Amino acid sequence: MAVAKKEATSGWEWRMRVDNETLSKVMSPEEGPYMISRVLLGLKERMFSKPLNFLKKAWDLACNDPRKVIHCLKVGLALTAVSLFYYVRPLYDGVGGNAMWAVMTVVVVCENTVGATLSKSLNRICGTFLAGFIAVGVHWVAIQAGEKSEPFIMGVSVFILASAATFSRFIPTIKARFDYGCMIFILTFSFVSVSGYRIDKLFDMARQRLSTVFIGTSLCIIISIIICPIWAGQELHTLITRNMDKLANSLDGCVAEYFISNEEDSTGSQKGCGKNLLGYKCVLNSKAPEESMANIARWEPAHGRFNFRHPWKQYLKMGTEMRGCAYCIEALNGCISSENKAPEHLKTRVSNICLELSSNSSSVIKELASIVKTMKKSSSIDFLAEQMNSRVQGLRNELKFLPSLVTPETPKEAGNVQDSKKTKENSVGLASASLMEIVPLATLTSLLIENAARIEGIVDAVEELADLAQFKPVADDEHIEDETMKTLQRG
Amino acid sequence: MAVAKKEATSGWEWRMRVDNETLSKVMSPEEGPYMISRVLLGLKERMFSKPLNFLKKAWDLACNDPRKVIHCLKVGLALTAVSLFYYVRPLYDGVGGNAMWAVMTVVVVCENTVGATLSKSLNRICGTFLAGFIAVGVHWVAIQAGEKSEPFIMGVSVFILASAATFSRFIPTIKARFDYGCMIFILTFSFVSVSGYRIDKLFDMARQRLSTVFIGTSLCIIISIIICPIWAGQELHTLITRNMDKLANSLDGCVAEYFISNEEDSTGSQKGCGKNLLGYKCVLNSKAPEESMANIARWEPAHGRFNFRHPWKQYLKMGTEMRGCAYCIEALNGCISSENKAPEHLKTRVSNICLELSSNSSSVIKELASIVKTMKKSSSIDFLAEQMNSRVQGLRNELKFLPSLVTPETPKEAGNVQDSKKTKENSVGLASASLMEIVPLATLTSLLIENAARIEGIVDAVEELADLAQFKPVADDEHIEDETMKTLQRG
Repeated sequence: MAVAKKEATSGWEWRMRVDNETLSKVMSPEEGPYMISRVLLGLKERMFSKPLNFLKKAWDLACNDPRKVIHCLKVGLALTAVSLFYYVRPLYDGVGGNAMWAVMTVVVVCENTVGATLSKSLNRICGTFLAGFIAVGVHWVAIQAGEKSEPFIMGVSVFILASAATFSRFIPTIKARFDYGCMIFILTFSFVSVSGYRIDKLFDMARQRLSTVFIGTSLCIIISIIICPIWAGQELHTLITRNMDKLANSLDGCVAEYFISNEEDSTGSQKGCGKNLLGYKCVLNSKAPEESMANIARWEPAHGRFNFRHPWKQYLKMGTEMRGCAYCIEALNGCISSENKAPEHLKTRVSNICLELSSNSSSVIKELASIVKTMKKSSSIDFLAEQMNSRVQGLRNELKFLPSLVTPETPKEAGNVQDSKKTKENSVGLASASLMEIVPLATLTSLLIENAARIEGIVDAVEELADLAQFKPVADDEHIEDETMKTLQRG
Repeated sequence: MAVAKKEATSGWEWRMRVDNETLSKVMSPEEGPYMISRVLLGLKERMFSKPLNFLKKAWDLACNDPRKVIHCLKVGLALTAVSLFYYVRPLYDGVGGNAMWAVMTVVVVCENTVGATLSKSLNRICGTFLAGFIAVGVHWVAIQAGEKSEPFIMGVSVFILASAATFSRFIPTIKARFDYGCMIFILTFSFVSVSGYRIDKLFDMARQRLSTVFIGTSLCIIISIIICPIWAGQELHTLITRNMDKLANSLDGCVAEYFISNEEDSTGSQKGCGKNLLGYKCVLNSKAPEESMANIARWEPAHGRFNFRHPWKQYLKMGTEMRGCAYCIEALNGCISSENKAPEHLKTRVSNICLELSSNSSSVIKELASIVKTMKKSSSIDFLAEQMNSRVQGLRNELKFLPSLVTPETPKEAGNVQDSKKTKENSVGLASASLMEIVPLATLTSLLIENAARIEGIVDAVEELADLAQFKPVADDEHIEDETMKTLQRG
């Protein structure tokens, strides 16, 4: 009954699903044509606007990072080059019909960065070689055991080795470095041991597979290193320094917006960091890319300013410390955009020291970014860190000094009438500020102090990097130690 | 000179690298044998302790998650099963020498979760089919163009399509769902178009490849669904609810540790959350696994309590809100372990209301976890959220009330002498607390309030999920709407 009544009063009721949100729409029958035009519009959107939008996104992607386009052309080039093995007959006869393994190797191994290509290549070569070696051994044992038990032995060995290799892919250290190699191991072992039962020319097959894999990988490595190489190490290095700059800008901007914009326009507009100040959010989310890049970078040879065994792991440590900082800025941002505003006179009191501390903190981060960028030790970082700490102490003192204004003033202490009056005004002003009003400011200062402590963590991590990677200029006593070592080695 | 002098005074100087940390050690020549025993010890460690340690880790991994072992056995089983195509002659003759493609498919497609296996299988089938179709078309065009231009046309088409497909792998939406399909597309297209030049039985080859791929994928899908299936959707669901519980425990524990342990033992021991209270750190780092699982889960058919188009994207939204909460708890943790301690009498004043708020907040999160776990709408969540908000208001009022104690007390207001004395004591007690001392407590309260606001974000996200996934019990008015729909459809 209730249903019928509802229907009678509301005409037709349409329910359609638009972008995952259920939207109930009540409309009269006269609106039918409008509905049809809506459907046509939706159809048009699906047919034209969406693909156009997609193409536009792809175009933007290409414009933003032309190296991606270059990588695509490199893959096309490598594939066309490897096709030569099919088109040119002498080469074709050389590696036999197995040339398609070279094609497959190129498709699978060609990665965006040199490190990833190298890692996959080496994994593929090692996996193929090891599996082929073991498979031939198992095959030999199976033949010795007699024709009847041969398929049984081969089957069991495939089962055991495939299971074991699959399990090893779950172990974190192996997953990080040799995941692809394990897969190739399983693949090659199954191929060779299973084919061994049929094909008599087992050694020939193993040799051919290895040679084609070798041709494919060397082609990929050469192309990826010669034509516009993208080094994972360089990318990681750039990511970290860019993130440091973003952190510094966010920190500076957030605190400045809280204190300064409020002084200039007290229109009570919505608080919170502007869009260009949200850079710290990139730092929050960069754990996964950092880790994958550090894993890849360790495969890369010396390139640019980086040696072969550049301490890439240290970059992860720096990243972790930077995230600690970013958590602080996230909380800072939350506190700045909170509803409770601190009273103006209190804000003005700590405004200068807070701004100084935040600009000092951000200049420490910027200096660290420049140390990492230039790979040179800085003489000013100790001074800047020292200055930051003294600013922290200054802020603490300022906060300690504040309550003296709230102590019930005793007339005995007042020197002259005017002074006493002034102090009284201050006292009343502060007393009228409830603790609730002080809370956002207290939070801000506390987070700024905490943030400074975390920045020291970054300083330590960068200094460790400078030691490990032997950044110049080197301190004098290290010179002496190096000399001592040389003298000892000569002696 | 300086070097020689240093050498003379300090005997020998050894510098060795231990665990990435340079350690300089000065020792006299008499310590030589000790050095040798150290080297032997190090050798022993490398030869025995490290591999043993590795095996122990692997064993722990297997014990912690036996499903991983089962997955390994499943891969072994699938591979042994597919080997049958080689061992049993009738089957072998059926699919020709291409049976190794089935082996390859099994190795590559067999993944830990059903969704990943399905996603790779479908990607492989579609990629193979599409590429084969296009390759045959291009081959036909090339034949029409004459024998001379054939290799040229084929080469150019490989170059263009391989580049385009590689580029499409950079586009985020395609990367998330069809990355593997694009690779298979490039692979198959290169194979077929390049082999087409040599092998005349092109259609036969394409048919055989498709059939072997089909055999391999169906075998993998059947095994992964039948034997102890691991559903990515279920895993994501469990991860989110477990993370919610961890958040609740961390929040509860941190605040309790700050207030309660201090009351019980004032020995001034190191503050900071205990190890079991650091669960929120898991939430900070779970963005990448959540995203990959949500991507995989959308491929899965209906399983357990989840429908085919379960709103997995909503889980990502919940995850984001939960991380917002975790950032707050991280800041809270930092403030709790800071050096500045609030004065006891102030702490005691807000202790109760803070503890109530934190336990209320954590019970809201726990209730949300239970909603998601049971997939049933809860009647108490609105009440709990309401209660949390009123606690927030209570805390605010408490903070607003506090400063009345610091206003310079005027004798007029005092009712009797004893009362006045008491108030004075309180006033003096508070006044002696510098703002610096109040800061950690103010930060704590401010973060608790901010945290409550963020928990409301989780509440909204969970309620959205409850609507999208139509959790029971449904509210009454929705019943009516459903009825209306049915009546309309009938009419």
